[in-house]
Amino acid sequence: MSIQSIKVGASPEVQYLLRVGDSCLVLAQRISEWCGHGPILEEDLALSNMALDLLGQARALLTHAAKLDGQGHDEDQLAFLRDERQYLNPVVMELPRGDFAFTQLRNFAVASWLLLLWRRLEQSSDAEVAAIAGKAVKEAAYHQQHAADWVVRLGDGSEESATRMKAALATLWPYFNELFEVDAVDAAAAERGLGPAWVELKDDWRAAFAEVLREAGLECPKDSAFQTHGRKGIHSEHMGHMLATLQYLQRAYPGGRW
Amino acid sequence: MSIQSIKVGASPEVQYLLRVGDSCLVLAQRISEWCGHGPILEEDLALSNMALDLLGQARALLTHAAKLDGQGHDEDQLAFLRDERQYLNPVVMELPRGDFAFTQLRNFAVASWLLLLWRRLEQSSDAEVAAIAGKAVKEAAYHQQHAADWVVRLGDGSEESATRMKAALATLWPYFNELFEVDAVDAAAAERGLGPAWVELKDDWRAAFAEVLREAGLECPKDSAFQTHGRKGIHSEHMGHMLATLQYLQRAYPGGRW
Repeated sequence: MSIQSIKVGASPEVQYLLRVGDSCLVLAQRISEWCGHGPILEEDLALSNMALDLLGQARALLTHAAKLDGQGHDEDQLAFLRDERQYLNPVVMELPRGDFAFTQLRNFAVASWLLLLWRRLEQSSDAEVAAIAGKAVKEAAYHQQHAADWVVRLGDGSEESATRMKAALATLWPYFNELFEVDAVDAAAAERGLGPAWVELKDDWRAAFAEVLREAGLECPKDSAFQTHGRKGIHSEHMGHMLATLQYLQRAYPGGRW
Repeated sequence: MSIQSIKVGASPEVQYLLRVGDSCLVLAQRISEWCGHGPILEEDLALSNMALDLLGQARALLTHAAKLDGQGHDEDQLAFLRDERQYLNPVVMELPRGDFAFTQLRNFAVASWLLLLWRRLEQSSDAEVAAIAGKAVKEAAYHQQHAADWVVRLGDGSEESATRMKAALATLWPYFNELFEVDAVDAAAAERGLGPAWVELKDDWRAAFAEVLREAGLECPKDSAFQTHGRKGIHSEHMGHMLATLQYLQRAYPGGRW
């Protein structure tokens, strides 16, 4: 009998790792939507390669989370057979691809956040997580630099590109709150030395973000009270549609392997 | 064990009925994407109701096709568990929803075609098909009239609405060819009295289409040699994405029932 939908347990370690792993998985899916649609060939390849980097990070984390979860699931089952509420990425990752300005600004924000996170995870009490972070930190540094260059080029570019970058900033800004929210899963993971509470990354992230915005000639929006809860499995309307596409192959051909 | 993907047999009767049933099913899915997004409330309700009419027609035809196919499948399995190549709707049905002008022009073209088809199917040698057609013909007449009103209103409306209707016409026109193509499945169905070869509907369809275009102040585009083959299961890139959404529930919860 084929396995249909699976659930992971409630352990904070597993939840914490899925929050990171699902962030990589879902953003990889969104970035990969540029494959064949990039504005220039070089950027098409760059975005597709970043999506593959993120997918590799997701694989490593999901495999490890499955092991800690101890129910005998593998990375594919975790990636493709959970229901929507079982995905723990912040909502910002699942927002539709948007235009090129939106994509680059989100990539910059997320890569900056991941870079700070991976650096801290290199000191994780979990040796496997530390090893994953050691590889990922180099990738995130490149992703951040690449996207920062585009944010500056577009923000400080033509009237059209600046308008689009401003619109992207206004749309995305409220969604960044969730990356630094305090909660019990985060606190438990921090206490056990698995990784930092995400709120600890906030000041450094804001400093990096503000610096690039300055270079791009853009102003930081006012803080917003808007709060999303993807990390608790409460997603936007976009998530279900994305999962329908993401999961299709494993749903139609259960257990299918390359 | 849950059933995964199913196939129907090669009998021309089954193929013929699926071509019509899948046309209704796939267009219903596209029209239903307007639910909650209509430009005015009345139209939101009208489009949603038309989608339900088409879905009802699809159910009836798929149920009957499954019976003729004789493999013990039901309407849900035919609607949700076939692979892409097993759907036999012409490509025009699966094109993305587009804007309101595109939607109304496609609805008008398809409803005009279905109306002619249902009228002929009322005389089908298969009593069940004749009964389905007897009910559907009234629905198609309403769909045709409703969409024709919009085509005229928009084509003969503001500069913006006329521009959009012209763009919709230019996009859609080449896809209509497939509705009237001659092939063996059609010929076999016609020979057995199941229903007309679709090519027999072409002149009446073109007359109805041209009349409404005239009222709308639009010109019929030149004929195009462009040919699609959805009726043979060869679909556009849009079909797979649509099926991922359409099939998700039955794929994630196999055998699920209301």
